[in-house]
Amino acid sequence: MERIIYLDNAATTRCGEEAAALIMRLLREEYGNPSSLYGMGLAAEKEVHRAAERLASALRCREDEIVFTSGATEANNLALIGGARARQKRLTGIVASPLEHASVLGAAGWLGENGFAWRQTEGTAPQDYAALVDEKTTLVSCMLVNNETGAVSDVAAIAEAVRQKNPQTLVHCDAVQGFGKLPIDLRRLPVDLLSVSAHKIYGPKGVGALFVRRGVRLTPLLYGGGQQKGLRPGTESVPLIAGFGLAAEIAAARREERFTYAAALRARLCEAVQGWGTVNSPENGSPFILNVSFEGLRSETLLHFLEAKGICVSSGSACSKGKGSHVLSAMGLSPSRVDSALRLSFSHEVTPEDIDTAAAALREGVDTLARARRSAHPAG
Amino acid sequence: MERIIYLDNAATTRCGEEAAALIMRLLREEYGNPSSLYGMGLAAEKEVHRAAERLASALRCREDEIVFTSGATEANNLALIGGARARQKRLTGIVASPLEHASVLGAAGWLGENGFAWRQTEGTAPQDYAALVDEKTTLVSCMLVNNETGAVSDVAAIAEAVRQKNPQTLVHCDAVQGFGKLPIDLRRLPVDLLSVSAHKIYGPKGVGALFVRRGVRLTPLLYGGGQQKGLRPGTESVPLIAGFGLAAEIAAARREERFTYAAALRARLCEAVQGWGTVNSPENGSPFILNVSFEGLRSETLLHFLEAKGICVSSGSACSKGKGSHVLSAMGLSPSRVDSALRLSFSHEVTPEDIDTAAAALREGVDTLARARRSAHPAG
Repeated sequence: MERIIYLDNAATTRCGEEAAALIMRLLREEYGNPSSLYGMGLAAEKEVHRAAERLASALRCREDEIVFTSGATEANNLALIGGARARQKRLTGIVASPLEHASVLGAAGWLGENGFAWRQTEGTAPQDYAALVDEKTTLVSCMLVNNETGAVSDVAAIAEAVRQKNPQTLVHCDAVQGFGKLPIDLRRLPVDLLSVSAHKIYGPKGVGALFVRRGVRLTPLLYGGGQQKGLRPGTESVPLIAGFGLAAEIAAARREERFTYAAALRARLCEAVQGWGTVNSPENGSPFILNVSFEGLRSETLLHFLEAKGICVSSGSACSKGKGSHVLSAMGLSPSRVDSALRLSFSHEVTPEDIDTAAAALREGVDTLARARRSAHPAG
Repeated sequence: MERIIYLDNAATTRCGEEAAALIMRLLREEYGNPSSLYGMGLAAEKEVHRAAERLASALRCREDEIVFTSGATEANNLALIGGARARQKRLTGIVASPLEHASVLGAAGWLGENGFAWRQTEGTAPQDYAALVDEKTTLVSCMLVNNETGAVSDVAAIAEAVRQKNPQTLVHCDAVQGFGKLPIDLRRLPVDLLSVSAHKIYGPKGVGALFVRRGVRLTPLLYGGGQQKGLRPGTESVPLIAGFGLAAEIAAARREERFTYAAALRARLCEAVQGWGTVNSPENGSPFILNVSFEGLRSETLLHFLEAKGICVSSGSACSKGKGSHVLSAMGLSPSRVDSALRLSFSHEVTPEDIDTAAAALREGVDTLARARRSAHPAG
């Protein structure tokens, strides 16, 4: 098989070697149920604790503030629905931006249909959130890094602006695209809830976590055997949780080096497309994501042109599966920019030569497809 | 390390070699996001479909009737809460036996506190369920194999009795301890919803599935990117799902042989404890589980005595983590029988010699601990 140039690391990543080896060991050798009372069960329970410690260390929070979930979709739902329900007798307002991930918008939408007042902000500046917060607002949700453009929100300033309007309002942060990539220090970041996912940081698919600050109460979404402090029952997936913990530890240890490396890749690609691509990502966005439009072409056409050359990129987010981007539309971009946008996302496994190859292929694609388009519609 | 004699296969099992190898490949090599539009994404999506086909083949249902979840706790919650919510305007009654798993009782309890009328049966015979079904009953939940005793319910007869009282009532079956072990044929078994789990059949922890019969509507518990027909959004854990599919296929192929083998192990142990242990499992129960009491002793004391000899057994279910069994209590057993019960559960990896070793260790434990107890309380 030819070498794949994988530029879709915001969709999912390859599980790292160390995490995969740990998962394998826990599947085959130390396979106890963490609720069992004998040594093999206690060893499994210890693996879960160790993973929570590793996440807590990466996020600068307490181990007992980590709740493992089946992924970020569940973490976001638990934060919004669980947080809102726990206080629904007094507080009923939900605020989020239309640029959030589908799981935040979906949970907020469900709440909006079930007794809550759900309002969308105009933008992502602190005052946009504060403008919608009133004495009834129970929860504000804001993402750290936008999954399509890489735009970084000033979550600390948003949280402070929200608290000034209503100190009782919970602030949730979807940090899925920021965790392990940008610095996060929960001793300083004044949020109550924060979601992270393993498979965006070289851990396995199927596990995520919700940080729940001490004292914050949630109503669970699931009921059962009391695992994860009753907030998330069900036999813990020890292999995935442990793999997540190790991936988080590695990501934290290599964060700065990987950040700098990604920034160089992104700058290289930015420069290469100058003049013939329109960058939709803000310049000060996450270095791991570049969203760029090639106006006049269709994202999917270009995506498949690149695919034929072994280059994987995304049109919009993977989660929206080819539908026109709700994020770019909400940003007010023209339909031709929305429809021609590609998201390229980086990792430490991508080389500068990969970027050059991808840029050359993009250029070839743009030229070839534009020529084909012109000859199909010669008059223009 | 000495050889562990693992007699707690109802709590969790060792992941099989084939499933683990497949998981490893999908973590490290074919790691695409099933929602991505290029080849690696489509290959991942194909793995999810293939797993659904394998489960469907094992259960004799259609591939599109399988919804993957993070495990049986979620599947049970989705069945009960999702099934009840979808029809809550008209139907509001929930019926289940007190012998159900904590996740069924927990979900039913939550419904009971949120506008539904939740009633517990007197027993597990068809007429016990039918007696509580009325024109408002929306869902009846009954387990195929009890996780603590191995008692097998006549789910088909229960479903028919329920339908005779109210043809609109949904019937859900928690088949976690039966799947891959007892025959299940959903072309004939007239249930609407059925939950299964991977880690009880030599698959990985962290994945389960809910069979949703065509035409049955559920309200999702989670909202997001529309995966799993919108019933269970979130990036699918392709490695776990594929591992589950393969484990299900293997379990189906070897079902009869493993059933016969387990029956021989169980009979051997039953015979060995005759006269000094009181069997709590029904004779016609699942051959994979034997629940037996050693009256006068505490389950946990005996559990740790066995553990010191490398033998893993359970007191009650793993999920209840050492709390007195709600199942044995609800069966009306005396407190001394409840408090001294052990659950031993079998697999094809257990040998007849393991059973002999375990029986000898049990006998030694009972004698030693009873002697210690007598000398501590000499008068009696």
